[in-house]
Amino acid sequence: MPKRENISMSVIRRLPRYYRFLKLLREKGVTRISSTELSAKLGLTASQIRQDLNCFGGFGQQGYGYMVDQLCTEIGNILGLSHAYKAVLIGAGNLGQAIASHLSFETEGFTLVGIFDNADAKIGRTINGLTVRNIDTLERFCNLEKPTMAVLCVPRSAVESLSDRLYALGIRCFWNFSHYDINMKYGDAIVENVHLNDSLMTLCYRITNDPMRTTK
Amino acid sequence: MPKRENISMSVIRRLPRYYRFLKLLREKGVTRISSTELSAKLGLTASQIRQDLNCFGGFGQQGYGYMVDQLCTEIGNILGLSHAYKAVLIGAGNLGQAIASHLSFETEGFTLVGIFDNADAKIGRTINGLTVRNIDTLERFCNLEKPTMAVLCVPRSAVESLSDRLYALGIRCFWNFSHYDINMKYGDAIVENVHLNDSLMTLCYRITNDPMRTTK
Repeated sequence: MPKRENISMSVIRRLPRYYRFLKLLREKGVTRISSTELSAKLGLTASQIRQDLNCFGGFGQQGYGYMVDQLCTEIGNILGLSHAYKAVLIGAGNLGQAIASHLSFETEGFTLVGIFDNADAKIGRTINGLTVRNIDTLERFCNLEKPTMAVLCVPRSAVESLSDRLYALGIRCFWNFSHYDINMKYGDAIVENVHLNDSLMTLCYRITNDPMRTTK
Repeated sequence: MPKRENISMSVIRRLPRYYRFLKLLREKGVTRISSTELSAKLGLTASQIRQDLNCFGGFGQQGYGYMVDQLCTEIGNILGLSHAYKAVLIGAGNLGQAIASHLSFETEGFTLVGIFDNADAKIGRTINGLTVRNIDTLERFCNLEKPTMAVLCVPRSAVESLSDRLYALGIRCFWNFSHYDINMKYGDAIVENVHLNDSLMTLCYRITNDPMRTTK
């Protein structure tokens, strides 16, 4: 598949939503869907959906709608989900364990190959069939396995030196649950941040400033 | 504090970042920061920061910069972090446990008062001092405790009926880790979605379509 450039992040961020929804339809045995139905279910305009899909060459026929299975597969290919990019996860605390399980069972596109921690109490434990390794063995492991992506579930204070080590090992892709801004230091890194606290603070703001609420 | 309206979500979503960063500075003992320094550290222009803060009345003085402690406190107030909105968490699986611990230790603005699940194996277990309750007791508990917010860590298939129950109990605020779109049904609900799979699929797309990468 040719590399695509210049597609806006807002289009890219809608693709997983299309994919999820089409997959659900496929599981329910739906074979065809009109762009009007699709737009009603997704809360987007039909024209928005057409525009988005046209970025990738266009699918569906005027007056006929979309073939669910085909479109789902195509979007999956566009997203690159048939790859099995090797991933390592650093930080086997509560969140790290949850994310490791999630990665093992519920995701496409990545294969978790190693979990690391620096705490004796966690090293040697098994999470979904993977043994938590000593962070001291990170270099040896990565030189052998050559993972593409690192999941960071460590405290902010640990991320800077850790991301330096991972970057030096050739890793350029990060799924970052910490609050350290990797892109400020490494502009060429591909980073997806999941900032749980920011999401929660935004919710707090919206509750506090909701014009519908008269009392706290 | 007066209710604020018409402030764009993109401004609101930057506030937690300001808050986190100022808190870090305060912990380091920094008392004053220029808007130039602030912008360099946050990767935003000084004019962007001034514009954002002006939405809330403006802070800082020309040529003097910002007083860290004061600005941090003010932004915390704007975010409503001094509230302790009662929250219930539904779904005590891996992710639910991680989020419950996170809510108990690392967040401001909310107090977790109850955890619920429908699985016998989980009911009765203790997570950070809270006993996991039977989901059958949700109505009784909520009528008594009147929580403001619900955290949803349940599979997609369970969310529709669950959000109906919570909505009927008066809950209008949701921190939603499932893929069910609550706002499609309840337009007046305040929802913050954390879609882990979407974030991961976006990362997969960006790796697959990165012009810098020549091989998978």
